[in-house]
Amino acid sequence: MAIEDQAETEVEAAESGTGRLEAFSDGVFAVAVTLLVLQLKVPDVPFKKSLASFVVDQWPAFLAYFNSFLTILIMWLNHHNIYGVLLMLITFVNYPTALLAPVLRSGTADDKQFATLVYTGTFVVTAVFYNVLWLYATYNGRLLGKDASKTLVAQITREYRFGPLFYLVAFLLAFVSVPASLAVTVLLAVYFALSGRNRAG
Amino acid sequence: MAIEDQAETEVEAAESGTGRLEAFSDGVFAVAVTLLVLQLKVPDVPFKKSLASFVVDQWPAFLAYFNSFLTILIMWLNHHNIYGVLLMLITFVNYPTALLAPVLRSGTADDKQFATLVYTGTFVVTAVFYNVLWLYATYNGRLLGKDASKTLVAQITREYRFGPLFYLVAFLLAFVSVPASLAVTVLLAVYFALSGRNRAG
Amino acid sequence: MAIEDQAETEVEAAESGTGRLEAFSDGVFAVAVTLLVLQLKVPDVPFKKSLASFVVDQWPAFLAYFNSFLTILIMWLNHHNIYGVLLMLITFVNYPTALLAPVLRSGTADDKQFATLVYTGTFVVTAVFYNVLWLYATYNGRLLGKDASKTLVAQITREYRFGPLFYLVAFLLAFVSVPASLAVTVLLAVYFALSGRNRAG
Amino acid sequence: MAIEDQAETEVEAAESGTGRLEAFSDGVFAVAVTLLVLQLKVPDVPFKKSLASFVVDQWPAFLAYFNSFLTILIMWLNHHNIYGVLLMLITFVNYPTALLAPVLRSGTADDKQFATLVYTGTFVVTAVFYNVLWLYATYNGRLLGKDASKTLVAQITREYRFGPLFYLVAFLLAFVSVPASLAVTVLLAVYFALSGRNRAG
Repeated sequence: MAIEDQAETEVEAAESGTGRLEAFSDGVFAVAVTLLVLQLKVPDVPFKKSLASFVVDQWPAFLAYFNSFLTILIMWLNHHNIYGVLLMLITFVNYPTALLAPVLRSGTADDKQFATLVYTGTFVVTAVFYNVLWLYATYNGRLLGKDASKTLVAQITREYRFGPLFYLVAFLLAFVSVPASLAVTVLLAVYFALSGRNRAG
Repeated sequence: MAIEDQAETEVEAAESGTGRLEAFSDGVFAVAVTLLVLQLKVPDVPFKKSLASFVVDQWPAFLAYFNSFLTILIMWLNHHNIYGVLLMLITFVNYPTALLAPVLRSGTADDKQFATLVYTGTFVVTAVFYNVLWLYATYNGRLLGKDASKTLVAQITREYRFGPLFYLVAFLLAFVSVPASLAVTVLLAVYFALSGRNRAG
Repeated sequence: MAIEDQAETEVEAAESGTGRLEAFSDGVFAVAVTLLVLQLKVPDVPFKKSLASFVVDQWPAFLAYFNSFLTILIMWLNHHNIYGVLLMLITFVNYPTALLAPVLRSGTADDKQFATLVYTGTFVVTAVFYNVLWLYATYNGRLLGKDASKTLVAQITREYRFGPLFYLVAFLLAFVSVPASLAVTVLLAVYFALSGRNRAG
Repeated sequence: MAIEDQAETEVEAAESGTGRLEAFSDGVFAVAVTLLVLQLKVPDVPFKKSLASFVVDQWPAFLAYFNSFLTILIMWLNHHNIYGVLLMLITFVNYPTALLAPVLRSGTADDKQFATLVYTGTFVVTAVFYNVLWLYATYNGRLLGKDASKTLVAQITREYRFGPLFYLVAFLLAFVSVPASLAVTVLLAVYFALSGRNRAG
């Protein structure tokens, strides 16, 4: 890489800085999404009941794992440039996932509701931050290139606006019905996975 | 990076997007394969028996670690572009590995069989998804460059077709003999490691 | 990449080596910052009290998580090129964070003080190493390019000089008041986050 | 990236493949070295003795952490291109490290010796594999560029030849004296850190 003049060097440095910020952010996402598997606990030896019945009883942990994995993956696919507080929220998803799994199987009604509120609440806060970041990025094309398609930007903005709303619905549903609330988060993950697929290529 | 015209910029953006998708996928693989070591448990202090006999008794955990590590590594070597559900299956391998290790040493015959079914079953599902992805990628050269050698594609397709079949054999063998079933998965890992070596360079 | 002459190849090799050193360092940061979430423990089943009261009682663990996450992130933002002992200190932050969380809730006064001393002491040592590395890097522009702005270098040097001093104040405060000491580390994290923001772009 | 002719495309593809293999290998190293911190255990609440005395008693865990971290880091610095079995050995280092730490404090003489044999034995095997890989890579300049300095290659070969020997000495010393054996591994880590520094830049 020949250094020709200072202006060019600075542009390159800034771009390389962005590249590393992105690489760092990707690394955090990759670790956070993979750590989720550690929430799938294995029974202590000697087993109190058959391993098969233990694993079957563990279905809420599998559901929580599947749902959180898909949600983090979609967040990464839809919005690559995530830093700071948003990055912390992404890694934090491990905690409500770990909280939800055991409680769905054997907790009291109050505990189930509380764990679901923490779980969906985390997604509400994350979705709100996403919106703020996206609006900031698109305001006057500040962080997007000038060539970014206006139609695409408008479409994504429309989709994003409804993200926090949908997760808020899931959050509020938890006061009425825990299964309904969790079903909404699964449906949202599947919906965003299908709608985002066209763009992610 | 001078922006010359929009068409070129879009090509670059698409390539950079692919690059990040690959980097993210590589990151998930790297974390998943490394997390396997956490399944090798260390005894609680104070030890009930000598450390040496504890470690020797742990041989099934070492076998499961070795086998899963090699299998994930080979999946990564043979097919770099893995996303979505396949990525989840890769990280999931940690769970059946953790399930298998303690049960092989001290579980009932039923528990051993069940853990082996979950373990080989995970590989069957993963191998089937691999095939689907590969057929989709090669259909009309959709995801592969036009320059991809037809002979090589045909050879890989042939190999891939047998992957799910072999793992299905291992899965079904678990109903008859757990050691035979696990032996097949180890043999498959070693076979794919040797046959894939020529291509991976 | 056409190889034109040996001198150019060596420059490229050196640059690629730096790129991989940076990528490795970024990977360690990404894993270290994400592992922090594993310090947020989930209660054993069956719960002895309501899940809600357990989580609320866990506030010191959340505070420690937030504070350590922000501090590691800022270290990464302010100084990309971290290797060797500094990298070890970054990953080590997980340990005092894990030590601090349970003790703040239910430890004796002595234990609280000790955990806070270990926590702030880790930051003092890390900040001192940062300064040494920075002074080494800027001495005669050794590791920085010739084009690095002298004003910026002087500004950063000034800021860095006070880092160890501020963390030393937090460390010494722990002998008098644990909450005051921890409050200083939180304030420092927020201050550096805001002051570093202009440069990190 | 304009595609000009097929030959060039294939060279680029091969190089990109190498780049990803390196990135994957770097990722595994970064995760393995960072996971070591999880071996530093935190006492259960409520504490049976003061936190300070617990942490002070934990010194063997800190020593094992420091030693393993430095050794993995040096392996990465001295030889970037590590795959397959060597990558597995690198991630495996977490296990003997976890085995060594508790046993040094409170194990029987036999347990201490056994844990030290496993620890140093892992390094012997890793060092032997390194040598084999290095000899294979340098034989007729197979994996190194033609421009690789012959003097440097000869110097590294000389250093590498002694690696397994030194670790074998540490291994054999464990039969006589555990502290002496561990002291040798620490000295080797520090020696390689200093001698490798000139090349790593």
